[in-house]
Amino acid sequence: MTSIDLNADLGEGFGRWQLTDDERLLSVVTSANVACGFHAGDAATMRRVCEQAAERGVRIGAQVSYRDLAGFGRRAMDVPPAELMAEVAYQIGALEVFARAAGTRVSYVKPHGALYNRVVHDEEQAGAVVDGVLLADATLPVLGLPGSRLLDLAAKAGLPPVAEAFADRAYTEQGTLVPRGQDGAVVTDPGAVVERSVGLARAGVVTSRSGSRVEVRARSLCLHGDTPGAVELARRVRARLEESGVRVEAFV
Amino acid sequence: MTSIDLNADLGEGFGRWQLTDDERLLSVVTSANVACGFHAGDAATMRRVCEQAAERGVRIGAQVSYRDLAGFGRRAMDVPPAELMAEVAYQIGALEVFARAAGTRVSYVKPHGALYNRVVHDEEQAGAVVDGVLLADATLPVLGLPGSRLLDLAAKAGLPPVAEAFADRAYTEQGTLVPRGQDGAVVTDPGAVVERSVGLARAGVVTSRSGSRVEVRARSLCLHGDTPGAVELARRVRARLEESGVRVEAFV
Amino acid sequence: MTSIDLNADLGEGFGRWQLTDDERLLSVVTSANVACGFHAGDAATMRRVCEQAAERGVRIGAQVSYRDLAGFGRRAMDVPPAELMAEVAYQIGALEVFARAAGTRVSYVKPHGALYNRVVHDEEQAGAVVDGVLLADATLPVLGLPGSRLLDLAAKAGLPPVAEAFADRAYTEQGTLVPRGQDGAVVTDPGAVVERSVGLARAGVVTSRSGSRVEVRARSLCLHGDTPGAVELARRVRARLEESGVRVEAFV
Amino acid sequence: MTSIDLNADLGEGFGRWQLTDDERLLSVVTSANVACGFHAGDAATMRRVCEQAAERGVRIGAQVSYRDLAGFGRRAMDVPPAELMAEVAYQIGALEVFARAAGTRVSYVKPHGALYNRVVHDEEQAGAVVDGVLLADATLPVLGLPGSRLLDLAAKAGLPPVAEAFADRAYTEQGTLVPRGQDGAVVTDPGAVVERSVGLARAGVVTSRSGSRVEVRARSLCLHGDTPGAVELARRVRARLEESGVRVEAFV
Repeated sequence: MTSIDLNADLGEGFGRWQLTDDERLLSVVTSANVACGFHAGDAATMRRVCEQAAERGVRIGAQVSYRDLAGFGRRAMDVPPAELMAEVAYQIGALEVFARAAGTRVSYVKPHGALYNRVVHDEEQAGAVVDGVLLADATLPVLGLPGSRLLDLAAKAGLPPVAEAFADRAYTEQGTLVPRGQDGAVVTDPGAVVERSVGLARAGVVTSRSGSRVEVRARSLCLHGDTPGAVELARRVRARLEESGVRVEAFV
Repeated sequence: MTSIDLNADLGEGFGRWQLTDDERLLSVVTSANVACGFHAGDAATMRRVCEQAAERGVRIGAQVSYRDLAGFGRRAMDVPPAELMAEVAYQIGALEVFARAAGTRVSYVKPHGALYNRVVHDEEQAGAVVDGVLLADATLPVLGLPGSRLLDLAAKAGLPPVAEAFADRAYTEQGTLVPRGQDGAVVTDPGAVVERSVGLARAGVVTSRSGSRVEVRARSLCLHGDTPGAVELARRVRARLEESGVRVEAFV
Repeated sequence: MTSIDLNADLGEGFGRWQLTDDERLLSVVTSANVACGFHAGDAATMRRVCEQAAERGVRIGAQVSYRDLAGFGRRAMDVPPAELMAEVAYQIGALEVFARAAGTRVSYVKPHGALYNRVVHDEEQAGAVVDGVLLADATLPVLGLPGSRLLDLAAKAGLPPVAEAFADRAYTEQGTLVPRGQDGAVVTDPGAVVERSVGLARAGVVTSRSGSRVEVRARSLCLHGDTPGAVELARRVRARLEESGVRVEAFV
Repeated sequence: MTSIDLNADLGEGFGRWQLTDDERLLSVVTSANVACGFHAGDAATMRRVCEQAAERGVRIGAQVSYRDLAGFGRRAMDVPPAELMAEVAYQIGALEVFARAAGTRVSYVKPHGALYNRVVHDEEQAGAVVDGVLLADATLPVLGLPGSRLLDLAAKAGLPPVAEAFADRAYTEQGTLVPRGQDGAVVTDPGAVVERSVGLARAGVVTSRSGSRVEVRARSLCLHGDTPGAVELARRVRARLEESGVRVEAFV
């Protein structure tokens, strides 16, 4: 029987500001990418999300980011490797306190936003993220794009690489994401998103923008939680996966 | 044989800015209060100081603070207890990563600046700090003023309280600190600081501002490292203590 | 003919986070308290709100705050007067750029959150806020509670004091606000809020919590925009005021 | 008679941290690039530096930066143009308050650190900086590298471009700076720095790294103030310029 993990970003508020509907998302996903304070996520929110995730048996991952509250971590930054490494470790350590207090552990690491995109190709920053994870815990899986420098370097360093796919993003014929900003980069039809989820989970394939079938091997699907209707769509995805005989469970 | 711990604040730079002469201070003290990023202390600095402390066998303590880089943690803040608790735990967790990577552990917690002063009397905030330490590690000693609410509540919660004294601060006849801002609050004569250190370490007594001898029981002496001549004075204190037959060693 | 100003807090998002429905609020109020970056309000948001306010002829006020994004400016801070003065002036200056670029000017200053509450009684901080306004522009009106130290000191310094009232807050028999946290501090019935607005605007009176009529002289009513239904209620207040023959217009 | 402006970065501390020796630098330079709070420079420091500069008749410039205290503005960031424009204007406006309070005005704008380097070639960000200056004050000169996109776009927008040179940096045969990180990028011999200053000021020429004479037309020389001996070297530069018959004066 095929299984798939569902991950989403959680705890992305800051102080007075809320963004993600953490409570409802936690009833759908199996892995929670928890913001660690650098792009979002104050300490009290981190604590609450960890408690809620632990209660539901949802895995906790450290969603590490550039230090950039004003830009929500979406602005690429030329952070020197030694600083980036330390900042990644810092964020993991801070989250670990709340995961442990909730009776569980940080189970994986996933870069956020501009850092996520950068470490697809940037050898130096990808290496710094891997070094930061190693500094914090040399056994932690790393979540990212298949074929990214991040996952390659993680694997070389002995950190389990976990590939993820996006049911609501268009893919090129080579199986890479169509960059945001290009026409049709985002799949907006809910029905299509649901069907693509099933295809990715069951067969590891998705229809590319040109209509061809391309292989995208992923152990996790990333769901979005910060748009209107997102949680409802996530529920439909999960329900349809289970109806299709896919077991929805954390990758670890 | 009498023993005393010497503690000082370290790693109090931030990014481009330096403040404390960490390398030299680490050759004198037995306990390093490492800034954790809220009043000072970027991640790369925290990592470096932990490595240097571990190499020298100096204990690492989490110097937790209000979130206030602009004010260096010196401005009292009415932080609600649930937030303060989480922020304390966050800082301890972040530092723990670097302590572990250096082959050691965070060995104690000491509040910084305005938080340090506030938890002498403020029941609510003292309780929040204790709760934050418990959340992170229910075995950590807490360093503070003898008679403070912080140490009382720590003790009740099962966290070992560790009292500290200041050889360069004037004491009232009741054995409490003369508040900064009052005349003579700071002892500036180096020779006097050295002699007071010996008195505090050997006999647990110090001469009050009125000339009487008052009892101040402390397992640790706090040395200052951010003023001109501070490191040299710290060295003299340590040398004189050792000449007087006091063993200078960490309290844990 | 009686006239009243309606003011509300605007632009209280930060980067990715939104809070206030600025566009709709601007169709109701006559004075916009624009966040200046210390508790909320990134530069791009400040610019946008100033443009929208200027288009509608809504006055722009600088909503100055403690430097506290994590606490949304709601945590009292012991900021030394020289720092607070400079921070107030800094915020006014930053906002002035966007007001001028939109063809208008910053027309008044109103402290936010914990600073607003503090300067009711705190002589030192009230003086620092006044000094900060004087530094920026010695002609700017200052908005606050009647009887507050802030308005008294502003008046003495030659800054026009502007008293405001809250139609959705309970008042004591002395005409002061019932502190939040006490039972009945907030008036939640929309109809009551509307009627109290009319009473405050037309007669300068409001029913106290004990049922007596107390005098509350105010040239401005503060409306809240960050709760569900807030904008709709604000519209009803404005409509009812106008039906009652009250002219709704900025105080300057 | 030839004249030259001498500019340096000032006010680059933050809260407890100091960096530049502002008082002494102000006795040497004719233009002070004042940090505006985004990479350094708290409000109280900005106020003090503006007062000191005004007393000495030193021109005040807004040293605008990416929002990056942790990286001191030295990490390139992909800030969207609309945000960057607003952030530039925000910083200019904040500084303007203190310049006016000191009886003068912000007289020019100079980008700092990574932003300075980026706008040499980056059309989009250079345009955003120019737009930000226009938003704040459409008459302000812009200081930068000759041949940079920044100065080109400033000139097209009607903002006076002011080229600066560095007596302590090596130049290529094309008259561009040898990038930091390359061998010999920085001229460390004080005597050489002094002589190069005179050559740049009097003849607009400098010896390139290959020994050829290259033309570098600049109305301002940038002096560094954050290294040991920097202020003393700056004094020597100024003295030697004056002995050589060069009038040292602000470009505006």
